[in-house]
Amino acid sequence: MKLGLNLVGNGAHGGGWRMPDAHVGSSLDFQLWKRLAILAERAKFHFMFWADGIAVRSSARDETQLSYDSRIDVFEPLTVMAALAAVTERMGFVASASTTYNEPYHVARKFASLDHISGGRVGWNVVTSWSEQEALNFGREAHMEHSLRYKQAEEFVDVVFGLWDSWEDDAFIRDKATGQYFDPARLHTPHHRGEHFTVRGPLNVARPLQGYPVIAQAGSSGPGQDLAGRTAELVYTMQKSRADAVAFYSSVKSRFAAHGRSAESSLVMPGMMPIMGRTLQEAKDRAEQLQELIHPELGLAALIPSFGDLGGYPLDGPVPAPLADTNSVKSAHARLAKEMEGKSITIRQLIHQRSASGHHVVVGTPASIADEMEDWFVNRGCDGWNILPPFFPAPVEEVFELLIPELQRRGLFHTEYEGKTLRENLGLARPTHPAKRSAAAAE
Amino acid sequence: MKLGLNLVGNGAHGGGWRMPDAHVGSSLDFQLWKRLAILAERAKFHFMFWADGIAVRSSARDETQLSYDSRIDVFEPLTVMAALAAVTERMGFVASASTTYNEPYHVARKFASLDHISGGRVGWNVVTSWSEQEALNFGREAHMEHSLRYKQAEEFVDVVFGLWDSWEDDAFIRDKATGQYFDPARLHTPHHRGEHFTVRGPLNVARPLQGYPVIAQAGSSGPGQDLAGRTAELVYTMQKSRADAVAFYSSVKSRFAAHGRSAESSLVMPGMMPIMGRTLQEAKDRAEQLQELIHPELGLAALIPSFGDLGGYPLDGPVPAPLADTNSVKSAHARLAKEMEGKSITIRQLIHQRSASGHHVVVGTPASIADEMEDWFVNRGCDGWNILPPFFPAPVEEVFELLIPELQRRGLFHTEYEGKTLRENLGLARPTHPAKRSAAAAE
Repeated sequence: MKLGLNLVGNGAHGGGWRMPDAHVGSSLDFQLWKRLAILAERAKFHFMFWADGIAVRSSARDETQLSYDSRIDVFEPLTVMAALAAVTERMGFVASASTTYNEPYHVARKFASLDHISGGRVGWNVVTSWSEQEALNFGREAHMEHSLRYKQAEEFVDVVFGLWDSWEDDAFIRDKATGQYFDPARLHTPHHRGEHFTVRGPLNVARPLQGYPVIAQAGSSGPGQDLAGRTAELVYTMQKSRADAVAFYSSVKSRFAAHGRSAESSLVMPGMMPIMGRTLQEAKDRAEQLQELIHPELGLAALIPSFGDLGGYPLDGPVPAPLADTNSVKSAHARLAKEMEGKSITIRQLIHQRSASGHHVVVGTPASIADEMEDWFVNRGCDGWNILPPFFPAPVEEVFELLIPELQRRGLFHTEYEGKTLRENLGLARPTHPAKRSAAAAE
Repeated sequence: MKLGLNLVGNGAHGGGWRMPDAHVGSSLDFQLWKRLAILAERAKFHFMFWADGIAVRSSARDETQLSYDSRIDVFEPLTVMAALAAVTERMGFVASASTTYNEPYHVARKFASLDHISGGRVGWNVVTSWSEQEALNFGREAHMEHSLRYKQAEEFVDVVFGLWDSWEDDAFIRDKATGQYFDPARLHTPHHRGEHFTVRGPLNVARPLQGYPVIAQAGSSGPGQDLAGRTAELVYTMQKSRADAVAFYSSVKSRFAAHGRSAESSLVMPGMMPIMGRTLQEAKDRAEQLQELIHPELGLAALIPSFGDLGGYPLDGPVPAPLADTNSVKSAHARLAKEMEGKSITIRQLIHQRSASGHHVVVGTPASIADEMEDWFVNRGCDGWNILPPFFPAPVEEVFELLIPELQRRGLFHTEYEGKTLRENLGLARPTHPAKRSAAAAE
């Protein structure tokens, strides 16, 4: 079982930062992240993971409603992962970078640089940007239509791969005697001319130590699964039940075959927020306390994309029907609409249900949470988990101290890193340079 | 006297990497940079500095000629400075980021993040991209005309400043009791709509710890000096004689007055490559050895922008007249053309003269180099220096061990950091938030 630690600035639960023992201002406290990274490495986590938005992303109706949201001020993932790589030795770092409002050269270069800085311990989570706010920060009037941004993402990934392959692994001969710094025969300038991007190259960084950084992908819609099927080695997903997880797992893995890839070439890792206690009652109390700390304005803001502004409705009255469609996160909207079918709940109840931003929440003891993790894992619902702590630092420290040892006792989780690079630790093959692939095929 | 350490991947001298004691592959060896950063902090350097290009920038005629160039494979500065910030406590880090092929939101966000990660120790060197190769990596057919890219740079800087001011310093109240995470009255969304950029904001990072990261600027042409006069707090420049340095110093500082700034609000720091020996003879021998290690193909490639391809001319024959103009680095071209006037030297001699890429080279003992540094400094030719080691690691270790103590003995260089942030250590004021500036003015 592989484990990632999913780092949301103030915790993944909207009420988490208000807990009495929550660290105030954790989102921009580098010393806290440094300490957690060192502890996570001691616990043998495979990687730390950052989702990302290039805007204050919120559907709040105005700035006052927005002011109840703690997901505003965060580190930029590529800078913070570089810093954490410098103070760890085996921990991996996976971060999102948008294919919608970025240039492939910048992304290829930064991840190649990060891979060299870290000694081969980084991964790129390929995302498309879905929010209106991001569009407005990059000179667009509206955000890009869903299928178009996936087409652009496909080309973006190809350009990045081509840039990483600018140089064969052994291109830099650095021959002091002859003065030749690289072998020109091992330089492969991409000269890419496509529909969305024109990029000559070559990259001004040597090929990443891992060949390519590990490629992660989080899209669960149809085009998202296609992109994952072609390129992803880590698939991050939100699944709320074992049955859904098993269906998704089998669907994603079947798409690999269509692209000539083996099922083992990729790991499916759903997100999961553990709300843990030493007893079940302690866990339930904590969960209840967290829900009560969700300010209603925060809850109402989150419902706007799917329901419109419910500010005029009584909180303890029934939820009206959801909107027909959305151009933001399609898979999340469809799941919510499906969940709502035939149910009659109040707005307050819905806010509480959605308090973990749609993530799968497991309330229990270390043993009962390990039971559920084991259940999905052995039944082919996942290859591991992305753990989302509800706030910092207590819940994540308890994962290190209580949950990890429980998983290790069951033989589900490793007790030592298998190698030096993230690929080695995840059991993923190192991509061979295309020039070497052709050579191998010709023999 | 302020000191920066200018880090070129394999050293700033084109022949440096071929020296017998040069570290092979220093450009992508993070462990080496980490060790040098820790030593530089012990020596009390104010900052480490990275120039940057978003391409393999070379005027080489083909890939074979290019293969003699060691400036190919480098870390991306923002990632490596984040990593080095994590292993130091007082050292500053200043890096270039282009205003030509970047989006202001990305740049504002990354530097704000870096400022929080480092505890207020970073600076942004505002540059425009002048090379054809960079244009071709970002979907352009040709690179942007000189005056246009400076106009775009002016607007870019304004957008970045506006994004950094999205939040007042005390906007994030994080009130657990009321659930309010920030005070909406202290949020100032920029809503920028300009000629080159449309950026709504706000930034998704709190205001940088330093208010703004320290702003550096390196353009020495007229528009470059204007941009510096308005915004720069560190002016990086290439000056080859004390007389030129004094003239430039006075010219730049006079432009501050036009923008209502005091001469003390900015530091002029020319680049200087020390080629040092324990005796003058040892230094001269080292300088000669370095020149001999410049491969003629590397030298010829560097001359192409100013002279065209001289590959057909005899190396020991005279240099033809330079080209009339260039659209790359105007100030460097003008200086070279001036230097060549009325001189009759061979191509090989010119290659040797240009071996340090036009930087000011000082060959001498620690005492004689300190003499020159003192001379420019006390005669108002500079406020400090950007030291460019010819290769790594010996010459920079000798700077730490021999040159710094010499400067400290003379009382020219500090023996302890003055504060915690780069601004404090450089004696630069922290920019007040505009909302507070207006409040102060209204009183």
